[in-house]
Amino acid sequence: MGRMADIEAEGEATAGEVPDLGQLAGLVGYALRRAQLAVFADFHRSFAPLELRPAQFSVLLMLRQTPGLRQSQVADALAIKRTNFVSLFDGLVARGLARRVPVDTDRRAVSLHLTPEGEDFAARMIAISAEHEGHLTARLGADGRAQLLALLQKLLVL
Amino acid sequence: MGRMADIEAEGEATAGEVPDLGQLAGLVGYALRRAQLAVFADFHRSFAPLELRPAQFSVLLMLRQTPGLRQSQVADALAIKRTNFVSLFDGLVARGLARRVPVDTDRRAVSLHLTPEGEDFAARMIAISAEHEGHLTARLGADGRAQLLALLQKLLVL
Repeated sequence: MGRMADIEAEGEATAGEVPDLGQLAGLVGYALRRAQLAVFADFHRSFAPLELRPAQFSVLLMLRQTPGLRQSQVADALAIKRTNFVSLFDGLVARGLARRVPVDTDRRAVSLHLTPEGEDFAARMIAISAEHEGHLTARLGADGRAQLLALLQKLLVL
Repeated sequence: MGRMADIEAEGEATAGEVPDLGQLAGLVGYALRRAQLAVFADFHRSFAPLELRPAQFSVLLMLRQTPGLRQSQVADALAIKRTNFVSLFDGLVARGLARRVPVDTDRRAVSLHLTPEGEDFAARMIAISAEHEGHLTARLGADGRAQLLALLQKLLVL
C-alpha cells in the first residue's frame, strides 16, 4: 500500500533511451491492461479467419450453451450496454449466424438463438478458441493458468 | 487445451434466469477483460476527484519519474497511438499540468515535462494510487498480488 509513496523523481531523459516502465509495471491495473491487450491481440490473430471479435465470440458461445436467452439477459451477463448489444446482435443476424424469435407468452420479448449455420460456425470458433487458449497455457503453465483465473476472480468484487 | 471441445449445448433458457457464464469465465481472455474492467471501475471511482483517466495517470507518472522524454518515447512505451497521445497530452497542457519544451539540439523535437502544478498534482495522484492499489491488495493478499503480476508478465510475450 505504501509502495507508491516511495516513488522518487529520477534523472532527465535523453532521446532514444527506452523509458523505464518499472513503476507502472508494478501497478496491478496497468499490468492487467497490458496483459489483456496482449491476449486480445492474440485473439484477433487467431480469429482473423472467422472475422470475429471477442464480444461476438462471447455472445455466440453463450447462445450455444443456452439457446433462447433474452437480449437483456445476454447483455447484462456480458456487461454489454443494451444499445451496443442490439447492433452487435444485428451484425450476427446479418451474417446468418443468429436470429431473434418472438416469444409467444410476451409480445414485446424476443429470444435469441443460433441458426444451423451459427451452430457450425460456433463449432469452428470453439476449436480456434482451444488453440488460442493453448497459446496462453503454453506461457502460463497449467497450474499458472488455474492460479491466474482464481486471482482474477477475486478482483470482480472490488 | 482440449477443454473447449468438451463444451456441449445445454437446455433452453427461461426468462429471468441468470445465464450461466461458466464456460466463458473459464477462458483466460474473458476473465482478464472482466477483471480489468472491474479494476478500472475502481480506478475511476478513486480518481474521480482528480478527473483523471488511466492513460493520463500513466503519462504523468512516467514524466514525473523521467522528465524530458520525447512524445514518441512516452507513446511507444505506453502503447498509445501517436495521434491519440498528442490529444491526450494537449489535455494535460490545457490543465496546466504538463508542457512541451523545445529541444536545442533538434529543431523538430520537443521534450515533455510536468509543470510545478503538475508535480503537486502528481503527488496527490500517487497518494490516491496507493489507496486504489490498497483496494486490490485487500482482495488479492500481498502474495496473491505478487503472483498475479508475475503471471500477467508472462502474457506480454505471446
